[in-house]
Amino acid sequence: MTVAVTPAVSPNDIRAAAQRIAGRVRVTPIMRVAASELDLPVDVTLKLELLQHVGSFKPRGAFNRVLAAGPISAAGLIAASGGNHGAAVAFVARALGLRAEIFVPSSSPPMKRDRIAALGATVHVIDGLYDDAQAVATEQQAKTGALLVHPFEHPDIVAGQGTMSYELETQMSPDGFDTMLVATGGGGFTAGQAAWFEGRKRIVSVEPITSQCLNAARLAGEPVEVTVAGLASDSLGARRLGAVAWSVVHPYVAHSVTVDDNAIRAAQRLLWDRLRLIVEPGGATALAALHSGAYVPEASERIVVVVCGANCDPATVTG
Amino acid sequence: MTVAVTPAVSPNDIRAAAQRIAGRVRVTPIMRVAASELDLPVDVTLKLELLQHVGSFKPRGAFNRVLAAGPISAAGLIAASGGNHGAAVAFVARALGLRAEIFVPSSSPPMKRDRIAALGATVHVIDGLYDDAQAVATEQQAKTGALLVHPFEHPDIVAGQGTMSYELETQMSPDGFDTMLVATGGGGFTAGQAAWFEGRKRIVSVEPITSQCLNAARLAGEPVEVTVAGLASDSLGARRLGAVAWSVVHPYVAHSVTVDDNAIRAAQRLLWDRLRLIVEPGGATALAALHSGAYVPEASERIVVVVCGANCDPATVTG
Repeated sequence: MTVAVTPAVSPNDIRAAAQRIAGRVRVTPIMRVAASELDLPVDVTLKLELLQHVGSFKPRGAFNRVLAAGPISAAGLIAASGGNHGAAVAFVARALGLRAEIFVPSSSPPMKRDRIAALGATVHVIDGLYDDAQAVATEQQAKTGALLVHPFEHPDIVAGQGTMSYELETQMSPDGFDTMLVATGGGGFTAGQAAWFEGRKRIVSVEPITSQCLNAARLAGEPVEVTVAGLASDSLGARRLGAVAWSVVHPYVAHSVTVDDNAIRAAQRLLWDRLRLIVEPGGATALAALHSGAYVPEASERIVVVVCGANCDPATVTG
Repeated sequence: MTVAVTPAVSPNDIRAAAQRIAGRVRVTPIMRVAASELDLPVDVTLKLELLQHVGSFKPRGAFNRVLAAGPISAAGLIAASGGNHGAAVAFVARALGLRAEIFVPSSSPPMKRDRIAALGATVHVIDGLYDDAQAVATEQQAKTGALLVHPFEHPDIVAGQGTMSYELETQMSPDGFDTMLVATGGGGFTAGQAAWFEGRKRIVSVEPITSQCLNAARLAGEPVEVTVAGLASDSLGARRLGAVAWSVVHPYVAHSVTVDDNAIRAAQRLLWDRLRLIVEPGGATALAALHSGAYVPEASERIVVVVCGANCDPATVTG
C-alpha cells in the first residue's frame, strides 16, 4: 500500500539551513572529469564533499540540527553512529563548546572511533550494528536530557544535508546538469538533495546490493526492514529508510540502483589511481553505479557524482 | 655578481600555452580553508593542483612542450625524472600516441617508477640522483633523436607550468589574493607562476632546507650548485636552479624561505588529518612554510597555497 506523503523538508528549509551553518562548514570544490579519465560512459562533475570537515557531508546536517534546536543543556549532545555522523556531532560539539556522548556500533572501523574520541567526545562501543547503538543512545538520552542528534530522522538534519545542493547551484549553473548520483544510507543525504531540487533534477539513489533500504522502500511503497551487510555498511548500513527521508524520496526520487562490493572497490581504486583521492566505500558508491553500468546515462546526460566520504584506512584502498 | 637577465617567459607565452593544452589538463579546484582549520595564522585558499593528471602539476608543462615542438619523430619522447615529471611525460606520450623512454634515478620511490611503467613508457633506473639520470637521458637523446623533455630547463615547460596561475585567475578574482606560496624544485613551476603575475602578486618560493637551489641562487646572484637531500628530494631535489627559471625568478621572486623535514612532515600530516588529502612531501612544502612560521604573513595578507603533488605511499603520511 502506498501512503500519500507530504515532504517534511522544503527548499526554504534548506535556504534557512544554509544561512544558519554558513561559515561553519566548508564550501567543497567541484571538479570536471572527462569520461575517459575514469573509464565512464560520459563526462562527470564530481562534487568533492569528502573534503568537508571530518571527511564527510555529515557536519552540514549536524550543525543545522544543533543550531536550530535553540539553547542546549549542560548534558550537551548525544548520538549513535557508525562513524561519520558521530565524528560530525563531536566536531559540532567542540565548535560550539558543548559536551558530546557518542554510541558507536562494534561493526564500525577503529579509525572512525578514534577520531571521535580525538575530537573530545565520550565514545561508547555497543555490540552490534548501527541500530543497536541507536537504541542505547535513545535510552541514555531519556536519562541525561541531552539533545539527541539522529543521523537522518529529523527535518533539520535532512535540510542541513540539502545545503550541499544549494551550494552546488552557486558553483555551477543550475542549468549545467541533469542528474545527480548520490549514495544512500538512512536516506537523509539523498532526501536533502531531492528536497532542494523538487524534481528539477533527476536524483539517482545508489545503494550497496547488500544494504538497500531506499530501493526496498520504493518497491514496497513504504520504508521496510532490510538486512545490512557488505563493504560500505559502516556508513550506509541502515536497516530502514527514515520516515522524514521517505516523505521526500517518495515524490522526488524515481531512480534507485544497487551495486555490489566489487563495483564499490573498483570505484575506490579508480579514485585513487586517477585522482589520488582516498575515498571510503560509502563515498565511492555513487561513482560505482556509473562505472559498473548499474546506472546507464543517455549520451547527452550531464551528470554530477557526489563523492561524500573519505574516512577509511588508505591501505584498504591502495593495497 | 648579479647578471642582468630578461625573462624567458611572458604572460603571452602562458596564454598561448593555456590554449594549446586546453582540454588536455584538468582544471584543478580551489578551496577556501579557515586559519583555525589548519592551525595557520591566516585563512588560505588552497589550489589543489595535486588533483591534476598523474597527481602533480607536471602535465601542464609537458603537454605544452610537446605540442609546441611540432611533429615528433618515431623515437618519441625522452626524459629524466625522479618521478612526477616522468609520469607526466609518459602520460603525454600515451595521450598523443608517442613512445616514451624515462630515466629514473635510483633515489626515486618505487611507487613513482611503477606508475611510469604502467603508463606504457620504458623505464630505466640510473644509480644516483636526478642529475645523474638527466645526464644519461641527454646522452641517449643524442643517439635516438627523441624529443628531450627537460623537467624545467625550457621556456615551453615554464610557460606550461604557468598555466596554473592563468587558470587560478579564472577561478577567483585577480584582486582576491596578495601572495602565492609555491614549492620550488628546479624552479620551473615557481618561475611559471612568477612569469604570469610579473610582480602583480608576491610569489614566495618554499624549499627544503636540505635542497635550496632557488634560495642559493638569490643569495649568490646567479644559479649555483647546492647539495640535495631530505624528505622531498625525490620531487624538489635539483642541484641547480634552471637558467630559464632564473630569468624569471631574478626579477619577480623577492621572497624565498626554507623549511625542515619536520615541518614538511607536519604539513603532510595536517593535510591528511584535516582534509583527508594524501600529499607527497614536495606537495606539502608550501603549506609547511606557513604552518611552521618560516613565512609570516601580515594579518590582512590574502594567501594562496599551492598543494602540488600527491604521489607517495599513504602509509608514509598516515602511519
